[in-house]
Amino acid sequence: MHIAIFLFDGITALDAIGPYASLTRLPQVQIQFVGKQAGLVRAGDGFLGLQADAGIGDEPAADMLLIPGGAVDSVMEDAAVQDWIRRADRTSQWTTSVCSGSLILAAAGILAGRTAATHWARKRQLEELGVRYSPERVVIDGKYVTSAGVSAGIDMGLVLCEMIAGRAVAEAVQLSMQYDPQPPFDCGDPERSATPERLQILRSQLRI
Amino acid sequence: MHIAIFLFDGITALDAIGPYASLTRLPQVQIQFVGKQAGLVRAGDGFLGLQADAGIGDEPAADMLLIPGGAVDSVMEDAAVQDWIRRADRTSQWTTSVCSGSLILAAAGILAGRTAATHWARKRQLEELGVRYSPERVVIDGKYVTSAGVSAGIDMGLVLCEMIAGRAVAEAVQLSMQYDPQPPFDCGDPERSATPERLQILRSQLRI
Repeated sequence: MHIAIFLFDGITALDAIGPYASLTRLPQVQIQFVGKQAGLVRAGDGFLGLQADAGIGDEPAADMLLIPGGAVDSVMEDAAVQDWIRRADRTSQWTTSVCSGSLILAAAGILAGRTAATHWARKRQLEELGVRYSPERVVIDGKYVTSAGVSAGIDMGLVLCEMIAGRAVAEAVQLSMQYDPQPPFDCGDPERSATPERLQILRSQLRI
Repeated sequence: MHIAIFLFDGITALDAIGPYASLTRLPQVQIQFVGKQAGLVRAGDGFLGLQADAGIGDEPAADMLLIPGGAVDSVMEDAAVQDWIRRADRTSQWTTSVCSGSLILAAAGILAGRTAATHWARKRQLEELGVRYSPERVVIDGKYVTSAGVSAGIDMGLVLCEMIAGRAVAEAVQLSMQYDPQPPFDCGDPERSATPERLQILRSQLRI
C-alpha cells in the first residue's frame, strides 16, 4: 500500500500529520510526502518546515492519495497540481482529504455530485464547487474519504487503518497512539460551540 | 511568549505537531523548532523530514520548552543536548513534554522527585529515573507539564493555551481546530483496552 501525502506552502501541518500518525504504524504501508517540487514547504504560520521527498513529476502511482488543507487558494488555481491530482485519482484505490483539502479535490472536479466533509467554516465554498457538504466528521462516498476540520484527520486516519488492515489491527494502532482524547473544554463542535463570542475571538485574535 | 520545540532523528512527529497545532494559533506566541544542529531530522519511520530552523547553540532563551518523544535513547545519552535542556529549563517559565519526551527530561535530572506522565508502555522506565508516574493524560507539577502517549499532546496543547491566553481564547482555538474527537473505536486507554490480543498485534505487527 503506497500512500502519497501532498505538502504545499500554507499547509496546516496537523491535517497531514494527524492521519499519517496512525497510517505509518501499519507495516504494509509506505508513505511518501509529495510537493509540487521536492524540497521544503512551510506551514501557513511560517514556523514549521516539512520536507517533500518527491515532486509531483517523480511520484509513482499511489494506492491512496491524501490531500491536507490550510491556505488552499493557490493550490486550487495551480493547473500542474490539479492535473497531477486528477491523474493520481484515476488509478488510486482511495482518494482522501482533511479539512479544506476537500476544496482542492473539488476544484479538480473529482467530487462533483458527491458528498464530502470540510472545515465547518468552508461549507459554503465547498457547496459552490458542486459538492454536497456533510457535517459528519468522516465521510465515505465511494472511494472518496473526506474529513472535517484539522483534528478530524486523526479520526479519519483510524477509519483508513481499518479499511487497510482490519478492525483488530486498527484498534492496536489506536492503543499504541494512546488515542483516548480528553479535551480540556468542550468547544470543538461548531453546531454546539460556535457562539458569537468565540467566533469574534477566532476571527479577530487567532493566527489561523 | 517564545516556545522552543525540540526535534531529533527518531521523533514521533505527532508528539511535536499535536501541541504545536493549537499553540501556533495564539497571536502572542512565536515558535521555533530546534535540533541539535539546524537542518532536517527524520521521524522514526523514516518517511517524514522536519526542519529544525535553529540548533541548540543558536537558540535564544525560551519561555516554554517542549520535548516530544519517540526513539529517545540516543537523546537521553547525548551530553550536549542534556546540557542544553538543563540550561533552557533554568530560565523557562514552563518545561513540557509529550509521550516518552518525559524520559528525556528525567534523564536530564529535572523531574527528580516530581510526578509526570509518559506513554503507558514507558511507565517503568520513568519510575527507574526517579519520577512518580501518573496515568493522567496531562500532569501539571509546578512549572512542569507532561502528557501521556502521542495523541495526549493535543490535549496538553489546549491546557497550555489556557495557561498562556486564558479560557475564552483557548476555547476559540479548540473551535478553530474543530477538536471534537470521535475515535471510530474505543481502544486508546491502556487500563481498559490493552488486552493480550491487542498487545500481541501491537508488539508483533505494528511499525512503531
